Parts: sequence; C-alpha cells; structure tokens
Amino acid sequence: MAPILLNCMGNDHKEYIKEQVQVKNPYLDMMEEDILYHFSLSTKTHNLPEMFGDIKFVCVGGSANRMKAFAQFIHQELKLSGNPDEIRDICEGTDRYCMYKVGPVLSISHGMGVPSISIMLHELIKLLHHAQCRDVVLFRLGTSGGVGLAPGTVVVTDKAVDYSFRPQFEQVVLGKVITRSTELDEGVASELLQCSSELQNFPTVIGNTMCTHDFYEGQGRLDGALCSFSHEEKLEYLRKAYEAGVRNIEMESTVFAAMCRVCGLKAAVICVALLNRFEGDQITSPHDVLLEYQQRPQVLVSQFIKKRLGQIV
Amino acid sequence: MAPILLNCMGNDHKEYIKEQVQVKNPYLDMMEEDILYHFSLSTKTHNLPEMFGDIKFVCVGGSANRMKAFAQFIHQELKLSGNPDEIRDICEGTDRYCMYKVGPVLSISHGMGVPSISIMLHELIKLLHHAQCRDVVLFRLGTSGGVGLAPGTVVVTDKAVDYSFRPQFEQVVLGKVITRSTELDEGVASELLQCSSELQNFPTVIGNTMCTHDFYEGQGRLDGALCSFSHEEKLEYLRKAYEAGVRNIEMESTVFAAMCRVCGLKAAVICVALLNRFEGDQITSPHDVLLEYQQRPQVLVSQFIKKRLGQIV
Repeated sequence: MAPILLNCMGNDHKEYIKEQVQVKNPYLDMMEEDILYHFSLSTKTHNLPEMFGDIKFVCVGGSANRMKAFAQFIHQELKLSGNPDEIRDICEGTDRYCMYKVGPVLSISHGMGVPSISIMLHELIKLLHHAQCRDVVLFRLGTSGGVGLAPGTVVVTDKAVDYSFRPQFEQVVLGKVITRSTELDEGVASELLQCSSELQNFPTVIGNTMCTHDFYEGQGRLDGALCSFSHEEKLEYLRKAYEAGVRNIEMESTVFAAMCRVCGLKAAVICVALLNRFEGDQITSPHDVLLEYQQRPQVLVSQFIKKRLGQIV
Repeated sequence: MAPILLNCMGNDHKEYIKEQVQVKNPYLDMMEEDILYHFSLSTKTHNLPEMFGDIKFVCVGGSANRMKAFAQFIHQELKLSGNPDEIRDICEGTDRYCMYKVGPVLSISHGMGVPSISIMLHELIKLLHHAQCRDVVLFRLGTSGGVGLAPGTVVVTDKAVDYSFRPQFEQVVLGKVITRSTELDEGVASELLQCSSELQNFPTVIGNTMCTHDFYEGQGRLDGALCSFSHEEKLEYLRKAYEAGVRNIEMESTVFAAMCRVCGLKAAVICVALLNRFEGDQITSPHDVLLEYQQRPQVLVSQFIKKRLGQIV
C-alpha cells in the first residue's frame, strides 16, 4: 500500500547517506581498479553506475536456471517492454554465477552453501557500492527442508540460526573466529507476510531457519554416504530444532543475514519447504510438483516488489 | 610405468573387497530406491552398474565449463572413438552439477566451497557404491591462490589443512562437532610428482593446501566488501601459513580428503596457483594466461591416467 520506496528517496542528505550501500573496507576506494573476478566485471571495463545505478531489489537463489526463470517471470509481472526470452546473462564471461537485470530488479544465482554465497555477496555489495545504489532490499529465494511443515509451505525467516539454534554466524578472519549477528529486517518480513495473505491458497509462516554446512550429516539425514546415528537420534535433533522455533533448514541464510546486516542492507529470506523432514529425507515429489513449489517464493517476492513500485495498491 | 591398475584387478577376493568403494551407512542398502537428488539420477530409473561400473578415475573441479573442457581433453588424450564435441551432460536434469563420462574417466563439477563439494561427494560415493565400482582414484583439479609461488605453479597437496594449519576437517553431526583426518594418499601424490617431471616446463611442488570457508576475510584479502585488518597483519598470517608448509589456498580440499579417506578412496588434490598472495589479492592476469594455467592440472592428471592405462610406458 505505502510506496515506501518513494519515502526513502527524499532529498534529505542524512537519509541518503543512511540508505546507501556501505562497504566496510577502508582500502576499497583507494584501489585504482576493482576486478569483481567471479562476476567477470570490473570498475575499469564496465560503467557500473550506468549499468546498475537504478537497482532497488536484488533477488538471489542457488540455481542458475531458477534465477533466469525468475528474471523472466518478474519481467512479465512488471509488464516491461522487450522479449523476456532474450534476457542476457551479465556474467556470461564466467560460469561461477549468473546475473540478470530486469528494470530495478537484479536476479543472481549463488550456488550451494555458505562459502559459495559469501563470495557472491562480497562482490555484489562492492558492485552496489561502486554503482552508487541506494535503498536496496535483498531477498534470498530458496528451497529448504521443512521441520513440521507440509511440503509447499513458504517460510519467511524470522532469525537465521546455526546448528545449535543460535542467531549467529562464525566467520574466520586471519585464523581467528569472530561472531556476527544474523538478525534480519523485521519490517520486510512482516510486509512479506502481509503480501502472502493477499495471495490465494498461499501457505506461509514466519519461523527460524537453520543454516547448515552440509545436506546429509549436518541436517540429520539417514541417506548420505556417511551416517553414524539412528533414526531416533535424528528425530530427537529435529524435535529440538522445532522447539527452538526452527521451521526449515537450508544452507546459506546465516552468512546472507550477517553480511547484509553489517553493510546496512535490508534483507529477507524466503524459502519453500520441499518436504517435511519428520517424515523422510529424500525428495520424492514429482518434478512438476517441485517446480510449482519453487515458484512460490518468486510469486511472493513479485507481489512485494509490485506493491513497493505502486503497481498494486 | 607400472600398470598398477592391472595389479589391482586380480581375482583375489580379499583384494576385491578392500578396493571396493565403501559407504559408511548401514541404512543405505535397505532403501528400496536411492534418489541422488542433486545429480538427477536414481537407482530405480537408472541402471547405475551399467552406466558407471567401469569407472576407474573420477576428476572433480569447481567450474562446469572447465570440467566439460577436461572431459573433451581426456577424450582426445585417450584416443577414444566418437566426437568429443558431442559429449552429453549426464546430470542434464539439474543445474546443480555437471557430469561427463569418457571411457573409464568421470568428470564432475562441484561448485565452490566445502558445502557444495560435500553434497556432490555424498552422492558420488553412493553412485560408485551402487555401480559396484572398484579401484577408483579421485582427483580434485582446481585453481588456488599461491603462497610464495610464482603464478602458474602446480601444487600437489601433501596435507589439506584448516585455517589453523591443522590437517583436520570439522564436521557437524546432529549439532555436535566431530573431527576427521584429512590425510591424502602418499603414493598417488608421488606418482603425480613423477608424472610432472616427465612433462616439459611444468613447475610443480608438493606442499600443504589450506582450505578456507570464504575467499576474502578467511584468506586475508584486502579487497572484499568487509576488511578489518591491515596489510601487515595479512602478510603475517600468510607468513605463518608458509612456515606451516602451506603453498596454496583454496576452498574444498579438507572435506574432499576427509570423505575420501573415510570411504577408503585413494585421492589427490592438484591445484594451479593463479597468483602469489604475497604480491596481491586480485586476479589480474589476462584471460588467455589464466586459461592456460587452468589447463595444467588437467595435463598432469591426463599423464597419470595414460600411464595407469598403459598408454605411456
């Protein structure tokens, strides 16, 4: 309803500074050139302010195909001109990540796991800084295992928590472990929940999201190449997670929340649960059902963006 | 020189058992179906022994394009029939990983970072088990930052070490941290070094490889979105690493070594250094120079495979 975006674009200088993307690196602005190696972009070879200066929404997700599909979807949703099938991968010089720009929306893939998304986030935040972007909201759109949820349920993350259900991310800096908060933006989360209530048959909850560093042993799966625990021990761990407010498990949310927070970026995590982990480990739903599930975070974020842009009132 | 492969293929039953790929999961053989979700393969829909039973060498690396190029390269090197340009991605049902089979060689991409390669390794080891493969050697072919080495130098890993230079990998299992050894196969490493000495102008060293969970702060880079240390502190950390025998830094070796070891798989890590980290952080070499560097681990492993297959004596 409220065109919040417009509210942030006033001429108040303090507001401007506050909402600018902040890198936390005193050396960066002293560099003659900054090569964003894993994007195959550079401040010398690309005019980043011209290419990206109008970005207001950045949507990231693991799979390259899915983030291309999202770019095409949001192109249609925003009723932009041009053929969405002809959308070009901005990072075509590398196969590490894919990146598509659709009006004020940037769609980027980040691969699987904390290290993979962390490389992307460093270079994305530098890109947004070099491009002088402001008032940017970041969304991670993902898939996850549900904890006590029916498959297809969308989880908007309250807190991103680690394997011990703590809302923190451990980062190694020069061989020393430091801890960062993983709190996400409450306002964006409740706005997303409001959006979900306006969509038809759109099961959505707000809950904690546990981020693990592997898919099998760390998430208590009994079907990996290695498994040293019993079915009962697995269920006990999942029950403890549920009691701590965890509603889904994925592999990127803590570092995403931590880095966005340090850099003053509003951020949200929206993941669909592909299965209920109390009932199994393998993802057995048919391909078309999984495909429909994976579209749900996209539909929700599209609703959010359209409202912010004043296309829905 | 020695056709070691042939030595292992005798009819001795004990030898056969010893060299078989071992999963460490008592539940696996009780499952009616095993869906290797991130490969888009399954024991019910694919005849894995028929598809993969003859695999003897598995080569993995981060980039999908690079692992496709390696598959085409080894196809030519082994003088196999058919058109290497028509090679098919076995995992075309998903974009998580790419997989190519070329005679007895499997080439797979694993993305960036420990979590990404760990998902792939769980499903690869299950695949090799289901396919009843034996006498398999695994290679990780990668890129890395060199520590006191000229760009282009190839490092064959002695020990894979963590951020504190310890040869171990910490794995979370149901919320508890356990430690696994990251020792690699000494025999395969010295065989690789021998191979390198037979190639022309092929700078190769054996050294420790440090595995980090990010590319910027964890590796002491001054050019990330976040940096809280000085140039001198960075150099001090790299000097300590050098003193501990570290010659290069990458992001997958510890879990690769740990999982292969637990499952009785002989494994080696071969990475080229793209830069000398004492001299900088950004990868500034021209594209064609980097491309040639990236081919070096491929050339070395190809030499190893051709010798094992008796194509070079």
